[in-house]
Amino acid sequence: MAMMVAAARRLGGRSSGSPALTSLMLRLATLQTMSGANAFREERDTFGPINVPADRLWGAQTQRSLQNFDIGGEREQMPEPIIRAFGVLKKCAAKVNMEYGLDPTVGKAIVQAAQEVAEGKLNDHFPLVIWQTGSGTQSNMNANEVIANRAAEILGHKRGEKFVHPNDHVNRSQSSNDTFPTVMHIAAAVEINSRFVPSLKQLHGSLHSKSLEFKDIVKIGRTHTQDATPLTLGQEFSGYATQVKYGISRINDTLPRMYQLAQGGTAVGTGLNTKRGFDVKIAAAVAEETNLPFLTAENKFEALAAHDAFVETSGALNTISASLMKIANDIRLLGSGPRCGLGELILPENEPGSSIMPGKVNPTQCEALTMVCAQVMGNHVAITIGGSNGHFELNVFKPMIASGLLRSVRLLGDASVSFEKNCVRGIQANHQRISKLLHESLMLVTSLNPKIGYDKAAAVAKKAHKEGTTLKEAALSLNVLTAEEFDQLVVPEKMLGPSD
Amino acid sequence: MAMMVAAARRLGGRSSGSPALTSLMLRLATLQTMSGANAFREERDTFGPINVPADRLWGAQTQRSLQNFDIGGEREQMPEPIIRAFGVLKKCAAKVNMEYGLDPTVGKAIVQAAQEVAEGKLNDHFPLVIWQTGSGTQSNMNANEVIANRAAEILGHKRGEKFVHPNDHVNRSQSSNDTFPTVMHIAAAVEINSRFVPSLKQLHGSLHSKSLEFKDIVKIGRTHTQDATPLTLGQEFSGYATQVKYGISRINDTLPRMYQLAQGGTAVGTGLNTKRGFDVKIAAAVAEETNLPFLTAENKFEALAAHDAFVETSGALNTISASLMKIANDIRLLGSGPRCGLGELILPENEPGSSIMPGKVNPTQCEALTMVCAQVMGNHVAITIGGSNGHFELNVFKPMIASGLLRSVRLLGDASVSFEKNCVRGIQANHQRISKLLHESLMLVTSLNPKIGYDKAAAVAKKAHKEGTTLKEAALSLNVLTAEEFDQLVVPEKMLGPSD
Amino acid sequence: MAMMVAAARRLGGRSSGSPALTSLMLRLATLQTMSGANAFREERDTFGPINVPADRLWGAQTQRSLQNFDIGGEREQMPEPIIRAFGVLKKCAAKVNMEYGLDPTVGKAIVQAAQEVAEGKLNDHFPLVIWQTGSGTQSNMNANEVIANRAAEILGHKRGEKFVHPNDHVNRSQSSNDTFPTVMHIAAAVEINSRFVPSLKQLHGSLHSKSLEFKDIVKIGRTHTQDATPLTLGQEFSGYATQVKYGISRINDTLPRMYQLAQGGTAVGTGLNTKRGFDVKIAAAVAEETNLPFLTAENKFEALAAHDAFVETSGALNTISASLMKIANDIRLLGSGPRCGLGELILPENEPGSSIMPGKVNPTQCEALTMVCAQVMGNHVAITIGGSNGHFELNVFKPMIASGLLRSVRLLGDASVSFEKNCVRGIQANHQRISKLLHESLMLVTSLNPKIGYDKAAAVAKKAHKEGTTLKEAALSLNVLTAEEFDQLVVPEKMLGPSD
Amino acid sequence: MAMMVAAARRLGGRSSGSPALTSLMLRLATLQTMSGANAFREERDTFGPINVPADRLWGAQTQRSLQNFDIGGEREQMPEPIIRAFGVLKKCAAKVNMEYGLDPTVGKAIVQAAQEVAEGKLNDHFPLVIWQTGSGTQSNMNANEVIANRAAEILGHKRGEKFVHPNDHVNRSQSSNDTFPTVMHIAAAVEINSRFVPSLKQLHGSLHSKSLEFKDIVKIGRTHTQDATPLTLGQEFSGYATQVKYGISRINDTLPRMYQLAQGGTAVGTGLNTKRGFDVKIAAAVAEETNLPFLTAENKFEALAAHDAFVETSGALNTISASLMKIANDIRLLGSGPRCGLGELILPENEPGSSIMPGKVNPTQCEALTMVCAQVMGNHVAITIGGSNGHFELNVFKPMIASGLLRSVRLLGDASVSFEKNCVRGIQANHQRISKLLHESLMLVTSLNPKIGYDKAAAVAKKAHKEGTTLKEAALSLNVLTAEEFDQLVVPEKMLGPSD
Repeated sequence: MAMMVAAARRLGGRSSGSPALTSLMLRLATLQTMSGANAFREERDTFGPINVPADRLWGAQTQRSLQNFDIGGEREQMPEPIIRAFGVLKKCAAKVNMEYGLDPTVGKAIVQAAQEVAEGKLNDHFPLVIWQTGSGTQSNMNANEVIANRAAEILGHKRGEKFVHPNDHVNRSQSSNDTFPTVMHIAAAVEINSRFVPSLKQLHGSLHSKSLEFKDIVKIGRTHTQDATPLTLGQEFSGYATQVKYGISRINDTLPRMYQLAQGGTAVGTGLNTKRGFDVKIAAAVAEETNLPFLTAENKFEALAAHDAFVETSGALNTISASLMKIANDIRLLGSGPRCGLGELILPENEPGSSIMPGKVNPTQCEALTMVCAQVMGNHVAITIGGSNGHFELNVFKPMIASGLLRSVRLLGDASVSFEKNCVRGIQANHQRISKLLHESLMLVTSLNPKIGYDKAAAVAKKAHKEGTTLKEAALSLNVLTAEEFDQLVVPEKMLGPSD
Repeated sequence: MAMMVAAARRLGGRSSGSPALTSLMLRLATLQTMSGANAFREERDTFGPINVPADRLWGAQTQRSLQNFDIGGEREQMPEPIIRAFGVLKKCAAKVNMEYGLDPTVGKAIVQAAQEVAEGKLNDHFPLVIWQTGSGTQSNMNANEVIANRAAEILGHKRGEKFVHPNDHVNRSQSSNDTFPTVMHIAAAVEINSRFVPSLKQLHGSLHSKSLEFKDIVKIGRTHTQDATPLTLGQEFSGYATQVKYGISRINDTLPRMYQLAQGGTAVGTGLNTKRGFDVKIAAAVAEETNLPFLTAENKFEALAAHDAFVETSGALNTISASLMKIANDIRLLGSGPRCGLGELILPENEPGSSIMPGKVNPTQCEALTMVCAQVMGNHVAITIGGSNGHFELNVFKPMIASGLLRSVRLLGDASVSFEKNCVRGIQANHQRISKLLHESLMLVTSLNPKIGYDKAAAVAKKAHKEGTTLKEAALSLNVLTAEEFDQLVVPEKMLGPSD
Repeated sequence: MAMMVAAARRLGGRSSGSPALTSLMLRLATLQTMSGANAFREERDTFGPINVPADRLWGAQTQRSLQNFDIGGEREQMPEPIIRAFGVLKKCAAKVNMEYGLDPTVGKAIVQAAQEVAEGKLNDHFPLVIWQTGSGTQSNMNANEVIANRAAEILGHKRGEKFVHPNDHVNRSQSSNDTFPTVMHIAAAVEINSRFVPSLKQLHGSLHSKSLEFKDIVKIGRTHTQDATPLTLGQEFSGYATQVKYGISRINDTLPRMYQLAQGGTAVGTGLNTKRGFDVKIAAAVAEETNLPFLTAENKFEALAAHDAFVETSGALNTISASLMKIANDIRLLGSGPRCGLGELILPENEPGSSIMPGKVNPTQCEALTMVCAQVMGNHVAITIGGSNGHFELNVFKPMIASGLLRSVRLLGDASVSFEKNCVRGIQANHQRISKLLHESLMLVTSLNPKIGYDKAAAVAKKAHKEGTTLKEAALSLNVLTAEEFDQLVVPEKMLGPSD
Repeated sequence: MAMMVAAARRLGGRSSGSPALTSLMLRLATLQTMSGANAFREERDTFGPINVPADRLWGAQTQRSLQNFDIGGEREQMPEPIIRAFGVLKKCAAKVNMEYGLDPTVGKAIVQAAQEVAEGKLNDHFPLVIWQTGSGTQSNMNANEVIANRAAEILGHKRGEKFVHPNDHVNRSQSSNDTFPTVMHIAAAVEINSRFVPSLKQLHGSLHSKSLEFKDIVKIGRTHTQDATPLTLGQEFSGYATQVKYGISRINDTLPRMYQLAQGGTAVGTGLNTKRGFDVKIAAAVAEETNLPFLTAENKFEALAAHDAFVETSGALNTISASLMKIANDIRLLGSGPRCGLGELILPENEPGSSIMPGKVNPTQCEALTMVCAQVMGNHVAITIGGSNGHFELNVFKPMIASGLLRSVRLLGDASVSFEKNCVRGIQANHQRISKLLHESLMLVTSLNPKIGYDKAAAVAKKAHKEGTTLKEAALSLNVLTAEEFDQLVVPEKMLGPSD
């Protein structure tokens, strides 16, 4: 399909000498011979006529955008969740518009065509890239045009004849300025609920299981990366599990504002050209269609002119990334070795680790996850900058904000699942190594504080460190307590919580 | 006081040839002659003895930090809310410790000394900078040393004699690793509640008042910075007010996790060297002392090793900054002019605007606020990076994270109040200008859509634009409707909402 | 191809119930019937055997990565410039390896196969995503496997038989740890030279032309968004042109460090398993192949363990984004209107602007460009975070860093060209509007300063502002100068530079 | 002084009930009794009269700003390097103005007063905070007022009488719009040259010395945090030294654009109200005064409207921060232990490490440095946002941009010196530990590749790992080579570079 797009871009009138395009053109020629798709039809908008590939449902405005925004290539196309959300919205709009007088024949055809968009069946007819009009107008028109042409076909009419009109019928009572923010919210809320939160829950479940599995393994703690007092490996993992649990709360806490839909605000938030009640009805229709508690936005001016809800939600993803970065870093360091690192954890071996060092196995899932976290933090800055730069009645960084958030949601969700499935789930404790390190540590001296005071305990630790002896030897040689007292006080298993 | 610090830094043994220090030394000499403060006393820690300025309450560890971290100078000292929170915490700790057996004489003296810290009376005895140990250990010791010395004095003993011991008494059952995150949370929660939220509320109130005051002023809307359909100035301000209202919700939503205190986790989160129940009691004491609903953290491992709560709260500040950036940008652009800009708003004149252009008045409050917003966004990145870089049982970016958030809270709160008081409150609508622009706009054509369809309406607007005529003239000349129809349809006052 | 990938992912052994995959499977079935590609072959690595799609050239390690890193889907595949750079590098490596004893029959086949990769002919055989091993090991192995199998075929052997061995032959004297940073540098340097700098030069040329075209158009200046003293529109554009010119210098200044290649460092930077001189020879071969002045890195330890060169280059892109954001913002504001904005510029109309407001035309190219700028700023943060998080001998955020930079380069270059072609080139000055605003401005009063002093000039401007009169009327009424003096002093055309 | 400021803020007419201010007022009262400074004098600007503390040199506009921008308190005052740079600039301006006709009596007095500002002697008379007018106008007026009053005093006149006029004399031929960017550039260039680059050089020197000192210590390498092939500790440190060396190049590469001065552009870049040649002369005067190669900016429009030079320089600081973050992280991990970490480095013990764990010593210098790095990265984002948000002829984020960069420069320089002096310089290698880890490592197997091939070498390593044996035992048991061959091939000292 991508090659079609590139060809369409070219054949639509733009000249470009890039080798990639030339190569694509050659491949297109072959394909066209195969498929017979070698014709163009004329579409028309207020700017006049323009050629469009005959086998594509889009119209004049989509074609213009394709030619005017040759930025980034096919990898930069509007994310699929946005396309699907347009299907949902246009279906709901047609339903509500029929209540307000839209011809039911036309309305039903729109509903059917929009449903196909919602199911992803017409994805190949949405070629536009993110980097277009900042209101997403052209993607809204892409949806209007595709649905209008498809609905016309359903009703037995030809593409391009506007029997079903993209503006007057499909976009009725709507403006890009309210539809695009609406699909942004639908897409984000759907992805968060259906994909992201379940992924985090899966990761949380696995970390929590590990914290139970490891609850009796006493190990040395580390603060400032230096040896510290002991804890259990289960306690350590309980910290990770708590971070992810709170992460789920954090993202959920942002949803109330994400469930507010701009639809009904039309061009500037006033709702001009809609009927009273349209906004409430359409939010209800979307809620029914998605099974999510969408509501009409309390203030449509805010809903068009700002995307604070996206900046906020991106902030939650940013926090979750900080959590996961911490967890993945710990796990790779605790699993470092096998012989010259900390070596307390044994991570699953999923693939050969090195093209030069035979037998090497690396914490690759940690690496993929931490790379994703860094990218999410970067996207957060991009979204923040876009969110802060609205002017007057309309923020025009919408496609960037939407696609940035959706990419973050997708990557962070997928990477969490991959990390869970291919790493966390299979982590084993290296009991022998953990025990060895624990008993060599000098920080067990801390349990002497209540008995001999901080200053004397420090002297014991320093002496043992300097002379390479055990704490007990140092304590006895300094005469600060007896061997019996030492043995009674310095018991790692008794250092795992407050005393009674 | 700063000069004392610098001198202390120097006299403690470090040599530095910087002119600033030399100059300060000279001034110190004068002051010392005045005050008689020319002596040093010896303090001592596990590293041995060290000289400390006699008129300062701090001890050996503070002095060492002063010498080891000569980074940034006095402007970089630990923020005052942290110092005060240490006072609160150490007071509460002494109270609870007395329940667990701390000698009441010592305990009460600690309570009294800590109260002085909480009230800011001993600020001059907290010279350490942010850029120190990443756990804030040295500021914790600074608090322990100052309170111990002050408590000893209260009990009639001399400074440095450790009648009250900074570790064994003041820091009893505590570790820097739990006290510092605890004071971070106390300081942040107190500042947010006492200073920040009230500031936002003040701004919200003023914006809301303006939205009522301006509710009948119909003006041209602008999308893509281009002329669009009309709305009222009150509607425009209602969007701003909503943004700030949601901002208040956003910051409040983060507080539940901010109210969780690490205290009782001690070194690694296990609570070693505390007594069972200590954590709950101390959170209760802090809650009573501050009138805020603090609780002991559900998981102490998370509370020491991560600062996700700060990353999250900083995310809320980041969102609020995006909101305020948008609002301030709009206001300065709407107030641009006086003759060659949009000129719809008249902003208060607070000062001469130019040192070369006489009579110029600038939107300076917008400028101060947007600069603050940019800084808060930057601090957010710093906090995120710090928050993601914890290792094992302890995050060691604590002072940076804490001071960054507190600076953001302070700046954003103060700038909101300044903006409200010196700008928003005094904004006036330029009725004449607003009306003139409204009636010249071509986008009133939108109200013709339902009657003549999008394509014909577009033709009308284009014709008027090209020929420099009014919409009505263009419509009549195109014969799309009659003058009566036009006059009935194109009424800005009827374009402010959905139709019935 | 993507559907092949997804199917391969699945058929390789992983189960996944996602609807998208199911749908792709169905489409794959159809395609396979068409192409007869319904068989798998067994490939093998040190982890054992694994099934690979028979029509794909990749081997066992690629297949494992495909199954282990199901993150983000096909949009997240390693960018094409990386794949092509692998072709360049492996070709050069084979050439140099032949000098060091590699069997020429094998060597020449590798050269031929690698050339196909360099030309993008085998792109469909590189299915791996960015979010994999942080060293890019799996993409290096993907290149090794594809080239080995293709070279074997060239020599008449079968895929999977390892007649040409991916490690021992194709990867000879190399490690992922030096190849991946090498292809990062090759890809970045090539894209910057061949695509990015020419794009900026095109934009600079157009801005510079406009500055000449507009050199005699005197207009009001604006500072603080408020009316200020005049300048020419050409002077205004000369500022933009200068920003872009400096941007070209900025990106070029980073290239010397980008031209340093890690190749020859192998696993940890020592060059173990290479021959003396290998590093210099291979850098020379790459230089010859690409016509760019690549050199072997002065310090291989730095070249593997850090990617400061990428952080630096991303910093240049960040600066350029700040420049372009400023320019695009100015242009859209100067072009705001058509009737209720500043209206000094007339921007090209490329497409209908609104789905509800007929006749509206928007500064869409400015919007696309500023969205790109925000994304580049965000990518810069991601790259910085990745760059700062290396550990020991190897930074393992390589694929994220590389793909982030390449995306920024591509988007910023493409958007600059689009902005130039579809906006800047066609900008016209609205002479009438510019002249009207200029002569209404009060800030012409500044030219009175040298004559009557700042305080009196201020009084004139304030009086005119308050009373809505001209400056001249106010000046005369205040008796600060005569009408003749006024007319002689207040001449916008004389206010465009220093006086003699 | 700060308390004076606060009091002045209050007494100037603003009411504020904050406890901090009240407390400061009380202290002021005491001080005033001591100093007799209890009177105010009237100053006057175009807005009318206003009370100013009698013992302060500032005038009406400074006083207004003090009252209008109560944001952040005294910690947020304009950084000292900006104040000093104003001294330099105003001195140079007076000199050049005398060439153009400024009364030499007045001119010389200005020169003398400005010199006092340049030397920091009048710092107490610069109370304004960063968060003011975005052009820095009020700080420019602060400088003009202080210098005018001081110059008047020098000439025997009273403060406030304007015998020397702040605008007409001190600010002659200048505008805030060109003076503030000029002092930004002067301050940054001076600080970078005098403080920052020397700090980095000191750090580089120390790292380079260590790389020589450690050149014969063979140690295990680590990639992906996992054991890898060996290198010397000297090689490892040579990577760090190279990073810092390149960092010095990076910051130096930005200076050519930092040496361009905006002075002479006046209000909008045209140079209105200056004389031809003024810009060149003043840049020459500043160059002479500072011994730095300042030049007049090639394009004054760019120099006022954008601060790309600051964004660029901040980018260099950001890169250096990424480098130092990496280095400090490595050093703390290599120094982790003492018994349960990697333990290869012994870091200097500068202070007790824990208030609860006696004897603990922490890598505190690494912590301070990495916190600084995170802050610099955050400041970079703030500066980028500010830099991208200019409008028309003037960027109005100047004070934020300037102070952010200066803070980054100061912190990063100071922290580098502290890190060098208190950490790097004293690092010792733990020879015993390094040797033990080296010889236990399995990755020495890599040296078998050329002999037995990758697949067999991998089998050896895996067998040894699984069975806990040495590599040699595993190799022999697999019959891949003889004991003699093994001993000849596996020699860490031979694995440190390419073979001949």
